[in-house]
Amino acid sequence: MTLDLEAIYIDLHRHPELSFQETRTAGVIAAKLQELGIEFEEGVGKTGIAALLRNGDGPTIWLRADMDALPVPEQTGLEYASTARGTDPNGNDVPVMHACGHDMHVTALLGALERLVATKDEWSGTVVAVFQPAEEYGAGSQAMIADGVLERFPKPDIVLGQHVTPLPAGTIGVRSGTQMAASDGLTVTLFGRGGHGSRPHSTIDPIVMAAATVMRLQTVVSREVDPRDVAVVTVGSIHAGLKNNIIPAEAKLELSLRYPDDAARERVLAKVERIVRAEAQASGAEEPPTIVTDHTLPPTINDVDATAQLTAAFDAAFGGGTVIDPGMFTGSEDVSWFARDSGAPLVFWFWGGVDPQKYADAVAAGTVERDIPTNHSPFFAPVLQPTLNNGIDALVVAAREFLGTPAA
Amino acid sequence: MTLDLEAIYIDLHRHPELSFQETRTAGVIAAKLQELGIEFEEGVGKTGIAALLRNGDGPTIWLRADMDALPVPEQTGLEYASTARGTDPNGNDVPVMHACGHDMHVTALLGALERLVATKDEWSGTVVAVFQPAEEYGAGSQAMIADGVLERFPKPDIVLGQHVTPLPAGTIGVRSGTQMAASDGLTVTLFGRGGHGSRPHSTIDPIVMAAATVMRLQTVVSREVDPRDVAVVTVGSIHAGLKNNIIPAEAKLELSLRYPDDAARERVLAKVERIVRAEAQASGAEEPPTIVTDHTLPPTINDVDATAQLTAAFDAAFGGGTVIDPGMFTGSEDVSWFARDSGAPLVFWFWGGVDPQKYADAVAAGTVERDIPTNHSPFFAPVLQPTLNNGIDALVVAAREFLGTPAA
Amino acid sequence: MTLDLEAIYIDLHRHPELSFQETRTAGVIAAKLQELGIEFEEGVGKTGIAALLRNGDGPTIWLRADMDALPVPEQTGLEYASTARGTDPNGNDVPVMHACGHDMHVTALLGALERLVATKDEWSGTVVAVFQPAEEYGAGSQAMIADGVLERFPKPDIVLGQHVTPLPAGTIGVRSGTQMAASDGLTVTLFGRGGHGSRPHSTIDPIVMAAATVMRLQTVVSREVDPRDVAVVTVGSIHAGLKNNIIPAEAKLELSLRYPDDAARERVLAKVERIVRAEAQASGAEEPPTIVTDHTLPPTINDVDATAQLTAAFDAAFGGGTVIDPGMFTGSEDVSWFARDSGAPLVFWFWGGVDPQKYADAVAAGTVERDIPTNHSPFFAPVLQPTLNNGIDALVVAAREFLGTPAA
Amino acid sequence: MTLDLEAIYIDLHRHPELSFQETRTAGVIAAKLQELGIEFEEGVGKTGIAALLRNGDGPTIWLRADMDALPVPEQTGLEYASTARGTDPNGNDVPVMHACGHDMHVTALLGALERLVATKDEWSGTVVAVFQPAEEYGAGSQAMIADGVLERFPKPDIVLGQHVTPLPAGTIGVRSGTQMAASDGLTVTLFGRGGHGSRPHSTIDPIVMAAATVMRLQTVVSREVDPRDVAVVTVGSIHAGLKNNIIPAEAKLELSLRYPDDAARERVLAKVERIVRAEAQASGAEEPPTIVTDHTLPPTINDVDATAQLTAAFDAAFGGGTVIDPGMFTGSEDVSWFARDSGAPLVFWFWGGVDPQKYADAVAAGTVERDIPTNHSPFFAPVLQPTLNNGIDALVVAAREFLGTPAA
Repeated sequence: MTLDLEAIYIDLHRHPELSFQETRTAGVIAAKLQELGIEFEEGVGKTGIAALLRNGDGPTIWLRADMDALPVPEQTGLEYASTARGTDPNGNDVPVMHACGHDMHVTALLGALERLVATKDEWSGTVVAVFQPAEEYGAGSQAMIADGVLERFPKPDIVLGQHVTPLPAGTIGVRSGTQMAASDGLTVTLFGRGGHGSRPHSTIDPIVMAAATVMRLQTVVSREVDPRDVAVVTVGSIHAGLKNNIIPAEAKLELSLRYPDDAARERVLAKVERIVRAEAQASGAEEPPTIVTDHTLPPTINDVDATAQLTAAFDAAFGGGTVIDPGMFTGSEDVSWFARDSGAPLVFWFWGGVDPQKYADAVAAGTVERDIPTNHSPFFAPVLQPTLNNGIDALVVAAREFLGTPAA
Repeated sequence: MTLDLEAIYIDLHRHPELSFQETRTAGVIAAKLQELGIEFEEGVGKTGIAALLRNGDGPTIWLRADMDALPVPEQTGLEYASTARGTDPNGNDVPVMHACGHDMHVTALLGALERLVATKDEWSGTVVAVFQPAEEYGAGSQAMIADGVLERFPKPDIVLGQHVTPLPAGTIGVRSGTQMAASDGLTVTLFGRGGHGSRPHSTIDPIVMAAATVMRLQTVVSREVDPRDVAVVTVGSIHAGLKNNIIPAEAKLELSLRYPDDAARERVLAKVERIVRAEAQASGAEEPPTIVTDHTLPPTINDVDATAQLTAAFDAAFGGGTVIDPGMFTGSEDVSWFARDSGAPLVFWFWGGVDPQKYADAVAAGTVERDIPTNHSPFFAPVLQPTLNNGIDALVVAAREFLGTPAA
Repeated sequence: MTLDLEAIYIDLHRHPELSFQETRTAGVIAAKLQELGIEFEEGVGKTGIAALLRNGDGPTIWLRADMDALPVPEQTGLEYASTARGTDPNGNDVPVMHACGHDMHVTALLGALERLVATKDEWSGTVVAVFQPAEEYGAGSQAMIADGVLERFPKPDIVLGQHVTPLPAGTIGVRSGTQMAASDGLTVTLFGRGGHGSRPHSTIDPIVMAAATVMRLQTVVSREVDPRDVAVVTVGSIHAGLKNNIIPAEAKLELSLRYPDDAARERVLAKVERIVRAEAQASGAEEPPTIVTDHTLPPTINDVDATAQLTAAFDAAFGGGTVIDPGMFTGSEDVSWFARDSGAPLVFWFWGGVDPQKYADAVAAGTVERDIPTNHSPFFAPVLQPTLNNGIDALVVAAREFLGTPAA
Repeated sequence: MTLDLEAIYIDLHRHPELSFQETRTAGVIAAKLQELGIEFEEGVGKTGIAALLRNGDGPTIWLRADMDALPVPEQTGLEYASTARGTDPNGNDVPVMHACGHDMHVTALLGALERLVATKDEWSGTVVAVFQPAEEYGAGSQAMIADGVLERFPKPDIVLGQHVTPLPAGTIGVRSGTQMAASDGLTVTLFGRGGHGSRPHSTIDPIVMAAATVMRLQTVVSREVDPRDVAVVTVGSIHAGLKNNIIPAEAKLELSLRYPDDAARERVLAKVERIVRAEAQASGAEEPPTIVTDHTLPPTINDVDATAQLTAAFDAAFGGGTVIDPGMFTGSEDVSWFARDSGAPLVFWFWGGVDPQKYADAVAAGTVERDIPTNHSPFFAPVLQPTLNNGIDALVVAAREFLGTPAA
């Protein structure tokens, strides 16, 4: 029994699926779990899978990988680049790409399970492997929890997870405390009055309303947040109108907000709402805008003690200097819910996926931002190796650190 | 032989079709022409129809009606409101509505042909009825010309056409000289750099670039055009991004521009281009924007003598005060090409489609802009009668004015 | 007795005075009126002068010239360019320039009076010459009326006035009906909260509030006024802050608005107010902005019959083609009040002050806007001759047209 | 000999002076130094004073206080509030206020000198007291250095300074490494074309250009700087135009920029320049803007070892918990130059000036930003006591920590 992990990765990369549509991906995972002889349940939280590997007494650790891809048109030029398309929640036909590396997460977790199976005599305890859907909608972990994953499987003594990131391959980034930001996803709908493109005065132009709103939203971060605090207000999508000579009746904005904690969340949300409402009034809107929260992600907070323990284990396994403190990331995660709802500690770390020489060259040239594509970019692609093996190694070291040793 | 014109109108209204997709509409027209015993050719300029009614010696007049509908979600609440959908040139599935009254134009022309057939002993000459597609893309008349309509049919001595408009039913609006504005439709694509919504600094945000561009484009009209001149710069559609937490790589704007003449066109286009390019530079764009002209419409200029003659004929037929000078409209038309390319004079007039009492009430209340929906609005709907009969009457009066009388 | 009119003009040009500060100018006028033997009163409406020339029976005509200059730094390069400074109503020390040609208006009226005195046997009636202050604040004519000028002097049968303008010398522009726009001058004060430039989050930045307001005000004209109507929303001054590292507590904007009539005024003012208030709300202002109307000017409406009569007289005197219809001007005037409050008709015309060859060259090159400086520009300067003589001729022809002829 | 320090503070607060105009302030200082019997030189760096207190062998420490006030209209309501006015570098008459607490700095340093004089038998070494002008222009320390202060006085072994700040009285804030941001002050002049307010099309409106520039500059911080990095782009003043109906020819912006280090400075400056230039191009400016650097301040970097030593001394003197790490401040200072140019270490700390109960109440209510006025606010005012005594204590403890002890 040996999984061809590189082939699995390439297959998953070629066939990315949007959130809560990861049925083919789930099928691949299920087939491999079967090969490994690990019991599992499918359809946990719509398209999720939870697997159970019991091996005597000892702690229960959860290893979590997310599965979904993104509506991004792949431009990596890879031989195995995606040309897939999907249907997004608005019913639009969109390109789909593993632009956030979840294919790597799934493959590395399968690889780690294979190793844990092969070394059962060296550890004892229980491993729950969580293949989570819909991380990108911030909805998958809650869906699995709502579907009873915490009751149907042994409760975690610790939750462990990892994310591939544009650090040099061979580096692990992790910090105690707040590792990733809290986040909200909002949909804002602005209501104007439609009409003929040549008669703006008979309309209330929602595109001008939207443009003014986008410009004003910049001032939340530039003027209203302490320059020493972290906050992001991104308008990630704007859609209005179907034809140049028709002024549409409404405009839709999708916002992604980031902050370190709930107090900041409340402050920033209030500012965003104030601006959205006032800009509609400035346009003379006859109907106030609607602001809908599509998802809310808590900050990802690493347990202080467990992080220290794991950092030492990584350093011991991979050599000093492997682990860096990458600072708080402004990205967000829904992995926390497994830990929050079970009361278990969490450690969530990043591992590098960039060719180290390329990374070093970009640092030297001062062109990291331009030359090293980040997650969600159409150019994002970890180098297959050593990234995959590093990810497996990290998971196994982490699992073993928190599992027990067999009674002699 | 009597056409049920109201039923035709309702049928067309229920089944609107986008530009160059008017196949069902063309089928209805063809069937009715056959009923009337008028010879015609289908597929002239893709989906257009040209019909020929010879009746002895005399002038050749062209009567033109446009056929296409618009991507607008009908909200009229009419029993016969459209629920149709279509596929727009970008491949999007969109709602379709006769939001510009072309269903009324087609029906009125069929009605006028029926009357002309019935009264052949009262006039002599040749009538060419032009059912033109794709007026809304500013492309249909040129497509018919490119397809040889001016060679395949007798050349016009005069081109006549009409448009239903939110004036009170019973009113005709027409003026000598420039009746409708020149126009261009532009597609502007702005290029940024995509990335993660939480890492704006690693991207070049095309949504902020687009918003700044929209705000700046307002200054063309507010600051750079003589306040006494007519100009419109409308951004009718804006599209960027697929998800709140992904900053997309580009944004697309569709612009509709209006001006009285070609000199103004050149000036305004230069200003728009200057702003679009500079705003991309302000964003640090690494690739300059592209600006594509989708269509160019000339001003619609009514022949001075023919307009005077027709105005007198309308007044004689319908009573003094029927005809008003509505001023230049900022809307645009591609009917001119038939006249320009054949050297014939043009008269293009507007007829009212609003219940006169409702119109008078709105005038009294000062709420015309708010309460009387204009063309392209989701609420636009002429009252079926007397609008339809008025349109037929106007076409017949105009045709007879410029046709000959039979030799005694 | 012969006035050296060119010397008077040059002297006035060298010594411009701001509104209601025209004391030196009034002194020059008084001295010349004395030389001409015309009775007059000084200090009418603070710094105005009204002069009375009785010459038997007949109509009473008012000839009006305004006297004040502007806070503009002269850049004409003329040998007699102004280097004067003055104190504006805000207490600021500012450069002062006759950038609107009122020095030419005063000199031409003195020249016309000299001629009327010299030709008393050719006409009969009464001439009231009104040297009005503070036209640029829209306050001078009302100040003279409040000071009793309509009671202290014979009431007008007609009010006549003229303005030098960037038309070619030799051309007169005048039209029946609305000749100049109505206007309001507003001062808007925006209230934020001051603080340290490095701590924007502890402030409410009034400069960002002001910038957003200025950008949004552009949409009144670009989106909310019928493109065929005339409207101007100019922010002519913006002031906030004293030092780069202090965020100030407030910002001040001065607006100049233009429209053809009172209905449009009401609509535009409501839009401006809506935007100003909403943009303050978008900033989270704790105190609403104040909007103060500094002056209100009615439209300048020329009497239809009198304008026709005068146009014929000009054509007879200067040759056909001298008089053109310049269209409605977006500039505004307070001369109307003399006519409105007395019930007399008004004719107010423009006369050209640009070297005809230079003007023709600019027309040919399409560079009129760039090369022909307009009123209020730092480069504005009528050519001394023939402008001055043309202005005198026009006034005399107009006066004689409406005065009586002596009984034989 | 006892200085009445509270009276000195009140006197200085009542009589604030702008940068490089601190002549009355210098006079007060000189008089008090004379009372204390300390030798000093006046006019060092225009209006600065350096004083020398030798007391046997031992290290040389520099104690620095800045002297200047700001163009802010005091609104504290204090009995001793300033009503002073001054003339700023642009020649404007402006209100003047000690809105940054430099009056407290001067008074505390005089108080510390008095104590050091009184306790000469307890320490040995040399104290140089530097009363520095023009900190607010970022120019005073360089002016003193250019005037030879480092040669004319004993070179420092350490430079010490302090700043009063809106922390609760009794708290001292200091950190190792970067304590305050680097900063640049820029003046941006935008060139348009002036003209009549009613004829915007004949002008290039510099106020719209300025407004668009201000809005776009917000995106430097909101989009182009890593959300985890500190950066501030403040437009602290905007001035254009003298009258509502004249569109001016130019607009002036004053910017204050903040960053942690020189690499960030270079990046932010490039972005600001890119935006300023592009926005002028978007306006069609015929002359590019000018961008002048008025001052450049380095980051204020506290020596690691000396800061640790001083923190321990403060804790020993005032009790544990007195010293907090306030984080990096986004404010900036020119005190560094004395340390940089002499090669000496620097420690610069903050001491609290807010009534502790009031501060605690604001924290509890979550209204610190609103209720606790910051430096440069018109409402800024430290409570006189215990702030003054705390400042003296801190200076004396710091001085004694780095001076020597007398040979037994």
